[in-house]
Amino acid sequence: MYVLKKTTEAELNRVQATIKKELASEEIIQEIYEYIFNAEGKKTRALLCLLASKSSDIKPNSRINLASIIELLHTATLVHDDVVDESDLRRGNKSVNQVWTNSYSVLMGDFIYSKAFILMVKLGIPSVLAELAKATNDIARGEIIQLELFEKKQLIKLEDLLKVSYLKTGRLFEASAKTGAMLACRSKEEVKIFGLLGKALGTAFQIQDDILDYEALRIDTGKPSLKDFKEGKITFPLYFAIQNASTKDRKFIMDKLGQSKIVKKDQKKIYQLIQNDKTQKEIRALFKKYSNETLKQLNKLKHHACYNEMLDLITFSKIRKI
Amino acid sequence: MYVLKKTTEAELNRVQATIKKELASEEIIQEIYEYIFNAEGKKTRALLCLLASKSSDIKPNSRINLASIIELLHTATLVHDDVVDESDLRRGNKSVNQVWTNSYSVLMGDFIYSKAFILMVKLGIPSVLAELAKATNDIARGEIIQLELFEKKQLIKLEDLLKVSYLKTGRLFEASAKTGAMLACRSKEEVKIFGLLGKALGTAFQIQDDILDYEALRIDTGKPSLKDFKEGKITFPLYFAIQNASTKDRKFIMDKLGQSKIVKKDQKKIYQLIQNDKTQKEIRALFKKYSNETLKQLNKLKHHACYNEMLDLITFSKIRKI
Repeated sequence: MYVLKKTTEAELNRVQATIKKELASEEIIQEIYEYIFNAEGKKTRALLCLLASKSSDIKPNSRINLASIIELLHTATLVHDDVVDESDLRRGNKSVNQVWTNSYSVLMGDFIYSKAFILMVKLGIPSVLAELAKATNDIARGEIIQLELFEKKQLIKLEDLLKVSYLKTGRLFEASAKTGAMLACRSKEEVKIFGLLGKALGTAFQIQDDILDYEALRIDTGKPSLKDFKEGKITFPLYFAIQNASTKDRKFIMDKLGQSKIVKKDQKKIYQLIQNDKTQKEIRALFKKYSNETLKQLNKLKHHACYNEMLDLITFSKIRKI
Repeated sequence: MYVLKKTTEAELNRVQATIKKELASEEIIQEIYEYIFNAEGKKTRALLCLLASKSSDIKPNSRINLASIIELLHTATLVHDDVVDESDLRRGNKSVNQVWTNSYSVLMGDFIYSKAFILMVKLGIPSVLAELAKATNDIARGEIIQLELFEKKQLIKLEDLLKVSYLKTGRLFEASAKTGAMLACRSKEEVKIFGLLGKALGTAFQIQDDILDYEALRIDTGKPSLKDFKEGKITFPLYFAIQNASTKDRKFIMDKLGQSKIVKKDQKKIYQLIQNDKTQKEIRALFKKYSNETLKQLNKLKHHACYNEMLDLITFSKIRKI
């Protein structure tokens, strides 16, 4: 993780404390809840919200609360995603569905979602509520479209992948930045800029995540390698690799895609196909497009208190390996 | 179903139309959404809300919208429940997890939940939002407690069962009646009465549902028989049957509980154990307790426009077989 400004780090710690304070009266719920939130994520969305809401005019508490709500929403989607993807691991620990069962994951996801809505209602800002309710709906939409998309296999179009990555990742980044700006009572125009910045940053993050799924074969990303591939997901790097592969190699990819065990030799071959020059050039160009878009939007916010830290976040997103 | 007043029937039809109008831009989501809502439920919670909100002072549209929101929330819980219970059927049709997969059910449940929240935010009444967010959280809590409870088997206490049935059923009945009353701008005292009425009615409904799971062996309830029993659920009738059974019969029950296939002879024996005089007396007494509580609360609402129809609903709840 890159070095955060001390004050921002303290705020992110308060987000974590706020989330963990949300007790349930029942032991079993408390146990699973603590299990989920003891494994800390990067909290990129919460950070984005904290930066976008920087202002001397608002109570710090409401910024922490909004960032906590966003982190809760994000975590609820992860808990449900692990059921959908049949994942074994989450944030380096066994997933809830592994330690308990799918049933517990479905219901704990609902518990955390509704907890987030309770806190949103307490925050009491209609425009924030509307944006987050809509974003939650869009995330579910994105995940459903993705389910159907992966059945299409090599017929997938780049625009389909972009739509899904916007809905399932970019959308909450966008909402985090937008609601942060709304909380700080920024102008309609500025809220829009923050939204566009968040949307582009989220898409860049998703592309980088997709790249790291393959890079994990070579470097320690803290995540298992080829997870997407083994789940049968055609992500950005694989999309380009399929386009650029020979008929024989394409057949090899489609044969292996979705298999839960892939032998070392085949892993190496898959990695090589991803490393193909043209594929690498295309994936890097796509990443750069969204990364540049974030900078373009940030340039309109030079006067803003968050400018330097936001620039750090964008710079980090370009080099991150975790 | 009992005969509704023509105006109320028209309102329930408008609820159904409002729900079905909530289109998604993607074909796959639309298809599943329509599949779910083509199978109409009894809409008891929507009806309760419509009755509690009867007033000449408010726009009819907002009543229909609130009742639609409640029906959406209820349906989202059902879609997730079918994953938790691994159910094959819902409202006489194959469940979403059967026609599609668990993954689609998890995500469609999220889609419908968040759709309900979007509509709630549009309705724009903070007290209604707070109550429904809290109720949604309580329902998830109830379902999680229930999961753990059924692992306790014969050590289950009546108070545990009452708590679960309040959270998973009574709570949304309570919220339906309360938010209806809130919408109609009733006094704090009246909102409380409506809440208590809803809570008791919901618990009575749950007890009756539990009874009908066994009665389905004898009469057509429109639902498969022994569903709860086959899912390993100790419900109210079975709780009393276990208390009153001989050691040998108790062992028989615990052996068969949770088995997906039960031969005719054993089904008959289970039915007989439920029909035990003491068990029947106890279950009927419990039902009557909650049914009387609804009437006690309704008696405080004699001046209210909904009085007669609410009385019909309570009377129906006592004799319903579906």
